[in-house]
Amino acid sequence: MKPFLAAAHLAALSFTATSALAADPLPSWNEGPVKQSITAFVGKVTKEGSPDFVPPAERIATFDNDGCLWCEQPMYVQAFFVFDSIKRMASQHPEWKDQEPFASVLKGDMKAALAGGEKALVGMLMATHSGMTTEEFEKSVTDWLDTAKHPKTGKLFTEMVYQPMLELLAYLRANGFKTFIVSGGGIEFMRPWTEKVYGIPPEQVVGSSGGLKYELRDGTPVIEKVPGLVHNDDKEGKPVGIQRHIGRRPIMAFGNSDGDFQMLEWTTSGEGPRFGLIVHHDDAEREWAYDRESHVGRLDKGLDEGAKRGWTMVSMKEDWATVYATGQAFDEKLELQGVTFRVQSVSSGGESEVVLTPAGLTEVNEPIRAPIRGTITGAEVSDMNADGSPEVFVYVRPPGGEARGAFHAWSANRNKSLSEIYLPELAAEDAAMEGYEGKEEYAVVEGSFIRRFRIGGGKTRQLQYKLHAGEAGWVLKLDRKVEY
Amino acid sequence: MKPFLAAAHLAALSFTATSALAADPLPSWNEGPVKQSITAFVGKVTKEGSPDFVPPAERIATFDNDGCLWCEQPMYVQAFFVFDSIKRMASQHPEWKDQEPFASVLKGDMKAALAGGEKALVGMLMATHSGMTTEEFEKSVTDWLDTAKHPKTGKLFTEMVYQPMLELLAYLRANGFKTFIVSGGGIEFMRPWTEKVYGIPPEQVVGSSGGLKYELRDGTPVIEKVPGLVHNDDKEGKPVGIQRHIGRRPIMAFGNSDGDFQMLEWTTSGEGPRFGLIVHHDDAEREWAYDRESHVGRLDKGLDEGAKRGWTMVSMKEDWATVYATGQAFDEKLELQGVTFRVQSVSSGGESEVVLTPAGLTEVNEPIRAPIRGTITGAEVSDMNADGSPEVFVYVRPPGGEARGAFHAWSANRNKSLSEIYLPELAAEDAAMEGYEGKEEYAVVEGSFIRRFRIGGGKTRQLQYKLHAGEAGWVLKLDRKVEY
Repeated sequence: MKPFLAAAHLAALSFTATSALAADPLPSWNEGPVKQSITAFVGKVTKEGSPDFVPPAERIATFDNDGCLWCEQPMYVQAFFVFDSIKRMASQHPEWKDQEPFASVLKGDMKAALAGGEKALVGMLMATHSGMTTEEFEKSVTDWLDTAKHPKTGKLFTEMVYQPMLELLAYLRANGFKTFIVSGGGIEFMRPWTEKVYGIPPEQVVGSSGGLKYELRDGTPVIEKVPGLVHNDDKEGKPVGIQRHIGRRPIMAFGNSDGDFQMLEWTTSGEGPRFGLIVHHDDAEREWAYDRESHVGRLDKGLDEGAKRGWTMVSMKEDWATVYATGQAFDEKLELQGVTFRVQSVSSGGESEVVLTPAGLTEVNEPIRAPIRGTITGAEVSDMNADGSPEVFVYVRPPGGEARGAFHAWSANRNKSLSEIYLPELAAEDAAMEGYEGKEEYAVVEGSFIRRFRIGGGKTRQLQYKLHAGEAGWVLKLDRKVEY
Repeated sequence: MKPFLAAAHLAALSFTATSALAADPLPSWNEGPVKQSITAFVGKVTKEGSPDFVPPAERIATFDNDGCLWCEQPMYVQAFFVFDSIKRMASQHPEWKDQEPFASVLKGDMKAALAGGEKALVGMLMATHSGMTTEEFEKSVTDWLDTAKHPKTGKLFTEMVYQPMLELLAYLRANGFKTFIVSGGGIEFMRPWTEKVYGIPPEQVVGSSGGLKYELRDGTPVIEKVPGLVHNDDKEGKPVGIQRHIGRRPIMAFGNSDGDFQMLEWTTSGEGPRFGLIVHHDDAEREWAYDRESHVGRLDKGLDEGAKRGWTMVSMKEDWATVYATGQAFDEKLELQGVTFRVQSVSSGGESEVVLTPAGLTEVNEPIRAPIRGTITGAEVSDMNADGSPEVFVYVRPPGGEARGAFHAWSANRNKSLSEIYLPELAAEDAAMEGYEGKEEYAVVEGSFIRRFRIGGGKTRQLQYKLHAGEAGWVLKLDRKVEY
């Protein structure tokens, strides 16, 4: 169906008093100077004609990953992966039973395993991150992330990502920024999932990297991961990684530890408007509180110098309304008149779709897919035309920063199969749209599909549509117009 | 002014019989199986619902640079840069007078300079490509490219780029592809100009790279280029460079020499639809003819195996209607009623602008800048409203593959200053647009601004506008509608 221009919408059957509209692109950031520093900066660099205007091509923003986009306690997620990989690979390495640090890992004694310091760590990294093709390694990472759980929260690791940072990424992209990860973590460890989780494609991920070798195996080309550290993307390595991969200096950089210091220093010392931000983990209740003394994500110099250098210092406790992301994937079942609808959001390769799977229709129950831009915020079923066959509405909110939204809808034809519901062209409704000022809401109420929006003078106009069976399919037709 | 939707337009004062419309996105490619293989591939991977459909995020296309996007004869452009850099830097290196290969370069004996083989070459590369900051190096490259000329053609090196490949890059991007350079050339040598010349931003350039070191110089952070080859992006190094920078396998790859063989092999051995292409330099008349025996861009294995592997083999002589790019920058002077207008296109940082510089106005002759998306195809002056003050129209064609265009226009106010000319909202002209089928043309004819487009049944509708002085500025108002 043709998604029509809209803004916010209600997923419930009646209107609520407040509108989700004129949507705040950063709802998980508490109001205050921190949030304001972000929106003020983005506002000035995107304002054409402003002396601080930055052309879109130069709007480069770099983000650390561990402790900045997702959690890094009680140890780096990649360290969990290393330990689990050693266990998984142990049957092919009988020698590990008597060889440290592997023996300790296999006995479950992580503390002893880590006692060997950096050398032990590097040994474990090499053993688990080389000796396979890039495609085999990628599969081992995605397989592991599908099931491995964080020991404290019991969540999947990809659910241990910070909601405020997801909003920030989306907000920047909606404002013409290109978002990059610049992390000390392994580049091949991050790439398999950053697009799905953060919307950052593999080519925008910079990280530490090992050796790679192109070769033919039985005539089939492969890229083999071979031992050796080619680039250590930490501290001074971050500006170098940025130069190697991006080739221009970012105008915004986001970090949380002293490992990010040089990245922020490099970013904020360029000409023109510059922005640096440090997330301070000071929220023991909702997450962890650590800084100067931490073995992971140590923040000492940055804590002393950040503010002096004009960087925005985020208190996780004070500035974040929410910590972890919730409901990244939409998955809901609705039922009416003996027909059930499973509404799911599916993302892959940076593209999102709604997948609507009906059950109980008498002829066609094939899943229907439609591309969406943004996040599904709700779905509802109704029988507006009281024909004993339900309709299903799916509401979509576009990426942060954009006010207008869209929806998709289908109607069951005598409970046999589904057809799309179309909306009349907006052009035909010029008079009805006059004075439009946004704050739009949707809902199905008592047999009508309703759009409400502000029209100035503090007034609201409500357009009510009825569902008709048109020649080419289902159509919503304007029925009444109310102002109040 | 508000650019309005349009398609093609005439830069002349009268209509010609043929329309530039339904524009062939690859006009410099001769019709035949080579051109068809490109358009057929792009057609199938972009067709939603097709079994060969590839989501946009996975539409990665990689291009070699030397000999594929620009010329590499009689030697690599970067070699010219090396020699000129040695001459430029000689005063700081008095020892070079007695030290080979530098001494020979300074005497102008390139043959002797190259006699030292790879070792001499590497020595010259290191001497000219390290020991300065990345920003200093970038400046030396752009300064050199601004003036250095190709010894045979006398053109700037950035004019020695292949028009068919520029069209191909634009065509792929218009079809949702992300285009990358993957070249054996130096990554820092290419990045300063690839965005302007090819529309490929620095972060999408992969090449050979040397050492980089982040440090503070008198408190100011710099990235220093230090000696050492970190990545040799040639042969087996190309798939490795692709993995390091892009992190996923391309679906299309373009090259011209055996140095590209592994990139094409890696690209075309992936699952799903794949495309490889080799440009064969067989055009001694318009460019150069070389392959198996060439010291530069040697093509031997690829010539034997390319076709067997299903790669598209391009004969530069047969398949290219044009070789070198022409008129990348628009620059024209127009004169009417004592007022001259210089219309220029200016590109930087991936953004293009039209710069309109008036002369002869009695009050304000400041240049006016307006962002454009695409290429300026023409400009014209008129005095539609016969008020003794001219108007100027600038026509813009969007990047390849898109049918609709735009224009910008200004009118002189009693020969004092310029104001924009606005078009009425399309919405108000619904009836006039009914049946719109494209093939749109523009022109100023006998006091009217004219839009012509097809409306089905082989008919054409012509809308004629008159120029009016509105409250907020100049406005084009619909005056007549003719069908024939």
